[in-house]
Amino acid sequence: MSGSRFGKNFTMTTWGESHGPGVGAVVDGCPAGVALSLRDLQKDMERRRPGASPFSTQRKEKDEVRILSGVFHGKTTGTPISLLIENLDQRSEDYDELSQIYRPGHADYTYDQKYGIRDYRGGGRASGRETAARVAAGAVAKAFLRELRVQVQAYTVAIGNTRVDRARVDLAEAAENPFYMPDKLAYEQAKAEAENAIQEGDSLGGVVECLVSGLKSGVGEPVIEKLQAVLGMAIFSIGAVKGLEFGAGFSAAEKKGSENNDAMLVENGRLIKQSNHAGGSYGGISDGSALIFRAAFKPTPSIAKTQQTINSQRENVRISVKGRHDPLIVPRAVVVVEAMAAAALADLILQSLSSRLDVIQKIYGEGILCSS
Amino acid sequence: MSGSRFGKNFTMTTWGESHGPGVGAVVDGCPAGVALSLRDLQKDMERRRPGASPFSTQRKEKDEVRILSGVFHGKTTGTPISLLIENLDQRSEDYDELSQIYRPGHADYTYDQKYGIRDYRGGGRASGRETAARVAAGAVAKAFLRELRVQVQAYTVAIGNTRVDRARVDLAEAAENPFYMPDKLAYEQAKAEAENAIQEGDSLGGVVECLVSGLKSGVGEPVIEKLQAVLGMAIFSIGAVKGLEFGAGFSAAEKKGSENNDAMLVENGRLIKQSNHAGGSYGGISDGSALIFRAAFKPTPSIAKTQQTINSQRENVRISVKGRHDPLIVPRAVVVVEAMAAAALADLILQSLSSRLDVIQKIYGEGILCSS
Amino acid sequence: MSGSRFGKNFTMTTWGESHGPGVGAVVDGCPAGVALSLRDLQKDMERRRPGASPFSTQRKEKDEVRILSGVFHGKTTGTPISLLIENLDQRSEDYDELSQIYRPGHADYTYDQKYGIRDYRGGGRASGRETAARVAAGAVAKAFLRELRVQVQAYTVAIGNTRVDRARVDLAEAAENPFYMPDKLAYEQAKAEAENAIQEGDSLGGVVECLVSGLKSGVGEPVIEKLQAVLGMAIFSIGAVKGLEFGAGFSAAEKKGSENNDAMLVENGRLIKQSNHAGGSYGGISDGSALIFRAAFKPTPSIAKTQQTINSQRENVRISVKGRHDPLIVPRAVVVVEAMAAAALADLILQSLSSRLDVIQKIYGEGILCSS
Amino acid sequence: MSGSRFGKNFTMTTWGESHGPGVGAVVDGCPAGVALSLRDLQKDMERRRPGASPFSTQRKEKDEVRILSGVFHGKTTGTPISLLIENLDQRSEDYDELSQIYRPGHADYTYDQKYGIRDYRGGGRASGRETAARVAAGAVAKAFLRELRVQVQAYTVAIGNTRVDRARVDLAEAAENPFYMPDKLAYEQAKAEAENAIQEGDSLGGVVECLVSGLKSGVGEPVIEKLQAVLGMAIFSIGAVKGLEFGAGFSAAEKKGSENNDAMLVENGRLIKQSNHAGGSYGGISDGSALIFRAAFKPTPSIAKTQQTINSQRENVRISVKGRHDPLIVPRAVVVVEAMAAAALADLILQSLSSRLDVIQKIYGEGILCSS
Repeated sequence: MSGSRFGKNFTMTTWGESHGPGVGAVVDGCPAGVALSLRDLQKDMERRRPGASPFSTQRKEKDEVRILSGVFHGKTTGTPISLLIENLDQRSEDYDELSQIYRPGHADYTYDQKYGIRDYRGGGRASGRETAARVAAGAVAKAFLRELRVQVQAYTVAIGNTRVDRARVDLAEAAENPFYMPDKLAYEQAKAEAENAIQEGDSLGGVVECLVSGLKSGVGEPVIEKLQAVLGMAIFSIGAVKGLEFGAGFSAAEKKGSENNDAMLVENGRLIKQSNHAGGSYGGISDGSALIFRAAFKPTPSIAKTQQTINSQRENVRISVKGRHDPLIVPRAVVVVEAMAAAALADLILQSLSSRLDVIQKIYGEGILCSS
Repeated sequence: MSGSRFGKNFTMTTWGESHGPGVGAVVDGCPAGVALSLRDLQKDMERRRPGASPFSTQRKEKDEVRILSGVFHGKTTGTPISLLIENLDQRSEDYDELSQIYRPGHADYTYDQKYGIRDYRGGGRASGRETAARVAAGAVAKAFLRELRVQVQAYTVAIGNTRVDRARVDLAEAAENPFYMPDKLAYEQAKAEAENAIQEGDSLGGVVECLVSGLKSGVGEPVIEKLQAVLGMAIFSIGAVKGLEFGAGFSAAEKKGSENNDAMLVENGRLIKQSNHAGGSYGGISDGSALIFRAAFKPTPSIAKTQQTINSQRENVRISVKGRHDPLIVPRAVVVVEAMAAAALADLILQSLSSRLDVIQKIYGEGILCSS
Repeated sequence: MSGSRFGKNFTMTTWGESHGPGVGAVVDGCPAGVALSLRDLQKDMERRRPGASPFSTQRKEKDEVRILSGVFHGKTTGTPISLLIENLDQRSEDYDELSQIYRPGHADYTYDQKYGIRDYRGGGRASGRETAARVAAGAVAKAFLRELRVQVQAYTVAIGNTRVDRARVDLAEAAENPFYMPDKLAYEQAKAEAENAIQEGDSLGGVVECLVSGLKSGVGEPVIEKLQAVLGMAIFSIGAVKGLEFGAGFSAAEKKGSENNDAMLVENGRLIKQSNHAGGSYGGISDGSALIFRAAFKPTPSIAKTQQTINSQRENVRISVKGRHDPLIVPRAVVVVEAMAAAALADLILQSLSSRLDVIQKIYGEGILCSS
Repeated sequence: MSGSRFGKNFTMTTWGESHGPGVGAVVDGCPAGVALSLRDLQKDMERRRPGASPFSTQRKEKDEVRILSGVFHGKTTGTPISLLIENLDQRSEDYDELSQIYRPGHADYTYDQKYGIRDYRGGGRASGRETAARVAAGAVAKAFLRELRVQVQAYTVAIGNTRVDRARVDLAEAAENPFYMPDKLAYEQAKAEAENAIQEGDSLGGVVECLVSGLKSGVGEPVIEKLQAVLGMAIFSIGAVKGLEFGAGFSAAEKKGSENNDAMLVENGRLIKQSNHAGGSYGGISDGSALIFRAAFKPTPSIAKTQQTINSQRENVRISVKGRHDPLIVPRAVVVVEAMAAAALADLILQSLSSRLDVIQKIYGEGILCSS
């Protein structure tokens, strides 16, 4: 049943398999008048492009996005934006032997159970390749958010057992290393840890943090479609994400109310919070402060190390996953987190436009939708 | 904008404020023929009922649910099930002084920002009272799941700084203490910690774990509407939830692929997993093993201790929250977690019915929808 | 599966059976700040109330609506508005004999086929009584539209074989007769035709026209969610509606392009259309002129005249429908058409708020959603 | 805001402008295992292809569909099916002069009002070209329906003032003439009427009827998502449709209940209806008999005849629409009606799978979704 669309107002519907003609997305609901160029899209595509570093798959894909609709003279027209990324470097033969084997930690078995048929080549629809479409669609969401001066920045705070040192964190540094870590020393250490894992034919996971600044208050719906609920849907829809926390997150559970509450005060007429344990929202609605969350990624399940598993005939077999895989998925996942966060925020910002009659009268009354 | 409905197939739409005439929910999409009695609903209502222990608010509510539609001769008819719970013990006057004050950690400020008007009595729509409607609706979801032999059980694994000892965990024990902790010693310790907090006019948070057994494989949609994404939406829609993790969760990020992958093997024709770090799903689809997740709750923000905050005139004020509040929200949240998990599973199970043509032909062809 | 909700932004979910405790609706998505009083609701309830004239069922229902949530100090708060109408005058015994019989023209047979169980009392969920909930919810939509100066007025243009004479039409007259016909002579004639039908134990159908004025241009989405498509969904969701046409409707199919096109011209800077065959929209989007459509209602299927039908044992039986029925459904359907049209327009107006970046920047930028 | 998707379970999202790189659709929700070939799609594409007869636009498009995802080894995989049709024969220069003019009967003015920007080339998104994507997506829906032995056939019953004679109707004949009229004499007469219109630089409208056979009972949701309501949304989403009626339609409004009710009886154990004025559904649910409806199309607004209109500077201008247009839109619309009807039925059939617990237990219990 239909399950490939994200969003209600600003929506993205992704399609495509790892070894089909291509992957893509249709963005439906982007307002008219947003400046959008291929460069905006390509910049983000480059950040998740495979083959960029020794720590990612060696599959070579240029990942050039084509905009097939919805943009005219450099601006969005309010109609659906169709994005296409062709698959160029496919080596399906790598996967023929896997057509009958269920790789541990992969969706091979569950797809067969659910559908009775699957495109086994490179993981088909379950491949990380699908996220290329999300990144392209997410770049459209970011272009919209940029017009509202909302910034979404994700970066890596942990790889394997290496964590960044909060005292050393410098977000500018994140752009300077292939792991997107905002702490140079932590990067060096993580690099060594990663090299060892690769040596052993193994893989590592990690944690991505995302900071949203410039978001005004009033975004997010109370009760069900809370800001963190919609972000929860968005971030947990990324394969390999096993955990998500906002603000103080799990550590808030160990605090007392008096420690965890964020005291508010006014200084020279400016509203200030003495802390932001909530991570930017109360009752599911943004309060105008920074929105912050962290997503935990499991290590890549595709490893060269020999593992125990079964095949479709339900026989025990041993497997060493060949093909071209990412020993580290986290660095390439950083931009995917940004993409899904941006889509969720774009969706909720549009939704928040209809919260108040006075606002609606302002628009509708001022004849911005003007009567003939 | 519309944001009070959960689900696409099995849906619940909740309504109501803390100090209005009542709270309720409309369950639309429950299949016809499910045995449903008031006792099923009341059993769960009792678990979140206020005033049941010294650790919860002293507000006295009988929380009797009325079924206003959708059930005939003890079975659901396939039409919407309207559930009503009247508010009986309201003390609005407790809140008049709060009409102008923004309580720290509460949604008072954000509601005013979003709507420009709010029912400040007892937190209005943002009150934990709203969860009474979810518990009633969730009991309908559980009644449906019961017919498919799917069980959803939540329990407390941490209160403040007290955690259960996995070696001592006995799920049967969870029903024996008011904290729903499956570890008697941990409960005693948590009780002491809670008593201290109450003494200090403070509050505690904690962690709720949820175990779903009997769920077959093939439930959950790949890519966007993944099992954990829909559960992420459901669980993060519960106020006070700041974190969520599936299976190994955040600890998976520190493991290597070879450690984190769940090896599969066949023993006497039976499929077995040597571990369940994934927590029951791959690629967003259930694999037939136990589904397990944990939700972190922040401590109740309403505390007697004096705090710094502001009022609607943006003046600095100090506040000691009176009224009747829960020093511990976790014990009453356990059944709310079950309710939202059950609703999410009911929704995805219905969705999974249309995955395969052979299944559809079986139903449609067998004339279960029979032609005249 | 869930099918009792109308709308995406401004939504109504109705519930309830003819002989259960009551019927009702939850309106989710009404903006905050709309002035709403019980009188607004009661005024419309009165228009569809049974027992008001010899031409409608003699079932006596006061149809008093209770607002259970979402309104505070006379204004909507932006949270769900729960509406309850109790069923008072039930005579279920009238229907016991019908529990096994499938009445011609009714949904008895199809409900049994679909659900395998049905509340047969008074038609259960398929009863016209369900529209009481729509009228209450529609009155909320109208209250919102009133704030934007959009008026929705429906009236009867045909009863049986009597049609109004366009030359004599005076919309003010529609409020003066129980058939809501804007032509006094046509009403007198229709009254005679109706009296004959009642004499014969028969029933009549008719046509309701709806005029929407004050609607600005830009409402309605192109391609799928066109203004007439969403209205099509809304109006065809009313039981007994068998046809719907906009503007020139079916007669447009017989015209030439040069006759049917609506020429536009500017007179003293004012945009004027020389005709409105389109009925107020092009490409699914309102153009700021009057929106007009007509809905055809079949005659009430419940008649005293003896008819041929079958029972649930698939035996041939003859039936004369007792109970209290409407020989004329059209007069009471007029306000239901208004209710569904208002809901559709409220939904699309909210949707149209996010069409343009410049509008969004205006709201979002002006700090109407203001940053702390 | 997002308005380009049709359906909830079986969904199609269309994209593309008349003079962009192409048009297409993503079908999300088609069950796995449906046999689908390019031939299935191409067969329908051919029926709406431009340039096929002197009565349609002379724009030359091969309209070859590419399936970019969701099909593996000739069967659907349950994942999104992306369909692409490139635009080959564009003559944008034909439209440059129209960039500032609002053509009568077109969406030029309303798009400018709604979006403040529009791709004016060939009508952009509002062009009939968009229906190419619907026909391709509809062919997927038909392939699914074919597996359930449900047939959808549309044909022309009126062109301008020429109507088919019911006594002469032979559905096989509809395939034999370019107007898809099931009455040879009516076709000859319509052809003459069309030739005159073309001579005069004018255009004609008409009526398309659609017959659905093989649909079992129980399809369609009661109350809001009625069979005719969802079809109403689907058919009114087709540009140029001004009216829609089911079964007896508008004529039912003139009948008495005793004339309009469809008597049921059992003959040799077979259920029979003595008439089908309802057109195949009661209470919004199919009854297993033939589903029948008619859609009225207005004449093509693009005509060579000189017309009065305005430009974007709000000046009065006269226009004779050049470019390549269809003097008759109806013949090419026939397959579009089939496409949207098929999509609506596929959507509701999937929805109907979750109506009954006994059915669900059958599927879920039989281990078709099998437990590990």
